[in-house]
Amino acid sequence: MRRKVYVEGVPFTEVVLSDGNEPVRLYDTSGPGSDPEVGLPPLRAPWRSGRTQLASARAGVVTPEMAFVAIREGVEPELVRAEIAAGRAVLPANRNHPESEPMVIGSRFLVKVNANIGTSAVTSSVAEEVDKMTWATRWGADTVMDLSTGPRIHETREAIIRNAPVPIGTVPIYQALEKVNGDPLQLTWELFRDTVLEQAEQGVDYMTVHAGVLLPYVPLTAERVTGIVSRGGSIMAAWCLARHEENFLYTNFDELCRIFAEYDITFSLGDGLRPGSIADANDEAQFAELRTLGELTHRAWEHDVQVMVEGPGHVPMHKIKENVDLQVELCGGAPFYTLGPLTTDVAPAYDHITSAIGAAMIGMFGTAMLCYVTPKEHLGLPNRDDVKAGMIAYKIAAHAADLAKGHPGAQEWDDALSKARFEFRWEDQFELALDPETARAYHDETLPAAPAKTAHFCSMCGPKFCSMRISHEIRQRGMQEKSAEFVESGGRVYLPLTS
Amino acid sequence: MRRKVYVEGVPFTEVVLSDGNEPVRLYDTSGPGSDPEVGLPPLRAPWRSGRTQLASARAGVVTPEMAFVAIREGVEPELVRAEIAAGRAVLPANRNHPESEPMVIGSRFLVKVNANIGTSAVTSSVAEEVDKMTWATRWGADTVMDLSTGPRIHETREAIIRNAPVPIGTVPIYQALEKVNGDPLQLTWELFRDTVLEQAEQGVDYMTVHAGVLLPYVPLTAERVTGIVSRGGSIMAAWCLARHEENFLYTNFDELCRIFAEYDITFSLGDGLRPGSIADANDEAQFAELRTLGELTHRAWEHDVQVMVEGPGHVPMHKIKENVDLQVELCGGAPFYTLGPLTTDVAPAYDHITSAIGAAMIGMFGTAMLCYVTPKEHLGLPNRDDVKAGMIAYKIAAHAADLAKGHPGAQEWDDALSKARFEFRWEDQFELALDPETARAYHDETLPAAPAKTAHFCSMCGPKFCSMRISHEIRQRGMQEKSAEFVESGGRVYLPLTS
Repeated sequence: MRRKVYVEGVPFTEVVLSDGNEPVRLYDTSGPGSDPEVGLPPLRAPWRSGRTQLASARAGVVTPEMAFVAIREGVEPELVRAEIAAGRAVLPANRNHPESEPMVIGSRFLVKVNANIGTSAVTSSVAEEVDKMTWATRWGADTVMDLSTGPRIHETREAIIRNAPVPIGTVPIYQALEKVNGDPLQLTWELFRDTVLEQAEQGVDYMTVHAGVLLPYVPLTAERVTGIVSRGGSIMAAWCLARHEENFLYTNFDELCRIFAEYDITFSLGDGLRPGSIADANDEAQFAELRTLGELTHRAWEHDVQVMVEGPGHVPMHKIKENVDLQVELCGGAPFYTLGPLTTDVAPAYDHITSAIGAAMIGMFGTAMLCYVTPKEHLGLPNRDDVKAGMIAYKIAAHAADLAKGHPGAQEWDDALSKARFEFRWEDQFELALDPETARAYHDETLPAAPAKTAHFCSMCGPKFCSMRISHEIRQRGMQEKSAEFVESGGRVYLPLTS
Repeated sequence: MRRKVYVEGVPFTEVVLSDGNEPVRLYDTSGPGSDPEVGLPPLRAPWRSGRTQLASARAGVVTPEMAFVAIREGVEPELVRAEIAAGRAVLPANRNHPESEPMVIGSRFLVKVNANIGTSAVTSSVAEEVDKMTWATRWGADTVMDLSTGPRIHETREAIIRNAPVPIGTVPIYQALEKVNGDPLQLTWELFRDTVLEQAEQGVDYMTVHAGVLLPYVPLTAERVTGIVSRGGSIMAAWCLARHEENFLYTNFDELCRIFAEYDITFSLGDGLRPGSIADANDEAQFAELRTLGELTHRAWEHDVQVMVEGPGHVPMHKIKENVDLQVELCGGAPFYTLGPLTTDVAPAYDHITSAIGAAMIGMFGTAMLCYVTPKEHLGLPNRDDVKAGMIAYKIAAHAADLAKGHPGAQEWDDALSKARFEFRWEDQFELALDPETARAYHDETLPAAPAKTAHFCSMCGPKFCSMRISHEIRQRGMQEKSAEFVESGGRVYLPLTS
């Protein structure tokens, strides 16, 4: 059985187990639940402060938000404060989004997953997008990005934020472009700034800004197999090149920092020149932009503004580590936030898998947040099922990375599930699964009867061939004693045994 | 459009592209097609020799099989011969399975994927299993293991082998156990030997033998979270422990080698003590058995018998490389053949994904063949859809590993697909996809009209936001010239750009 519990106000999913086994507590992103017409209660309203989380951390103050995430992560509050103060972690929390439950993004903490949603010109309604956001957090989304384009963009975002228990990210250039009817050349700094202010007032917690796409870098993409694949990146590249001017996001970066500081908005420095194919991975264009993102990271920190840095994209496995190492070096340890990366280009319709491989690896190397990829990537807009498929693949990648990094407590979940499996506690195994419904349904397909849920074997091998049943019998035959005898005798195991 | 072509008798899938782009040739495992009642033609019948592939290779002879796989892999025949001679590659080809198309398994060649099928006591018919085998090879299975238990095991295997264009593997101890009504204590060497001879006559190309599960190792599993999870391993452990005798597969290994040499059957040395959970990975029991498998590898080589060595199982990402390094060291470079590994235990119903992550990584580190895992792992028997889901996940893992290893020609496939994507050649993109039908179907979901297949944008961003369309416009505006100018000017990109 699963139930929601609160520890000093911090939510967890508690999995209650049978046979006297200790319950297991899992990280819970689903929020308290809301009536979409009313929105969520303003949890953080009483905690408001005049400082950003970064300024507080630097001043040695553990904010209520930091205390909350310390409980959530199972670590000391001082670790949270110190990592935020050093810029190695961010706690995205716009003052105007008091409904969100605090969370932290940084390499010392659990690896996080972002889900992208959003209306487009032709599909989706406001209600559908709110439902997709709720659905994503139900499957473990730690943050959600609203990438809406098309009409009703303000209204959609308002509904999402008022109902979101997790931080909401946006890419303001999309809305700015709508305001000039889709012509990048009509974009101006003033128009962009006003769009940022509009979204800041609504409570957007972090914003992707493609301030690293500089005029001299654009020609570096000319020989690429897939050119520029970031929407924001291509918009800014077109602007720079057509006007022969430097990117206005770069030239006005300090003013942008002052706005972000006022609301405590976190930068997500966009990688507008990220590779869109295996052939283009780790090329000059990508790394030139990364150097500029490093420079901008340090400038934002001067304004007490929190920063994440976005990363690729499409990268073959042997080139993944270089991305993390370089990002850590150039960006002073600011959290890395990557899209996958996809480890091959040949499997459209399965890019949640091609990219889960890269995501797990880049997470192991220190990436703090993974942006999910759904099966519809490159092909169409994700529906509800695609959102779930993407989330599950990425929760797997994130948890595999937590295990590989030795995150305290991460393996308890695996151990509890494996112990349930070995002891034929089928119901416990299902309840501990990332997706209990599907695990149960698959078991039912071959052995639907209720007694099968307590059987000491399963449909795969049947009773005769069940290795786990035989293992239990071996134990009952006094294995434990034999084991002790064996150890006492000096253990011949490692001597070469020649015939 | 896809079509099958033959190059000097070696099959390839040729993807014919539009707009004058060169066709792309992909490795093809689907075979020439057969009427299940008749079986496949005996392709290799004229090539029969009195020697094993290993003995021929050692004698400096390039067999017709080696020449075949050299064309298939796009390498020199001498490389194939040398790798087989050194024991670093195997070419599993029982003299009595002339229907199979030769293939090679070794770290210098393309990473291979095995699919498990098989009847159980309660489910599946002979025809269904032949159909599953054909279905698996249609999705790229390089070998198929028939793990049938229950009745009609001989007849099922016969039908599978006669229709199999790929090598067939088995675990003979399963049939042996059926012959003694499921009581491991009644197993004898003689009974096992006769079972091996029966299967050898039918044409089984490689056999899993759990000869490394030694009596002194069994107690090492006593404190494990999941004990012994290999069926064959648990059967032999129970036999050893109950009779207080050494494993009869180990004590009769030389006689077994003589039988294998007669038919040119390849050993797949089973890892009966592989870990079945994250908690048990890389433990004493596992590595003690691996040492014995190293000893047995060298003994088989003395008999001119080819050897693969099986590996885990469940292993967190940071412990994967140690498995490969130790196997290479102990087993003299004999091909490693692993089951996944699963990188977390918490996602039953998605273990094709938890394990594709581990499979891709272990492939990159040098594992030669990956045994697929389906979504039904731990829960039930795979149906047709599960076989496909497992195959797709593992072809992704294998190809990602080929890219990471820099296998010659591997990236051409990715480049061709990405180029088609960038040039909005939608039909080419679908045809080049690992699963064309699904890619096309996903695209149709949002933009079903035929003109959308030639549109220079897609449903994700629409025309206004299409980064690739903007990229093309950037190029048209004289990017190439600007790029040249920029390079001539000395390239300021890597200088620090301070504000």
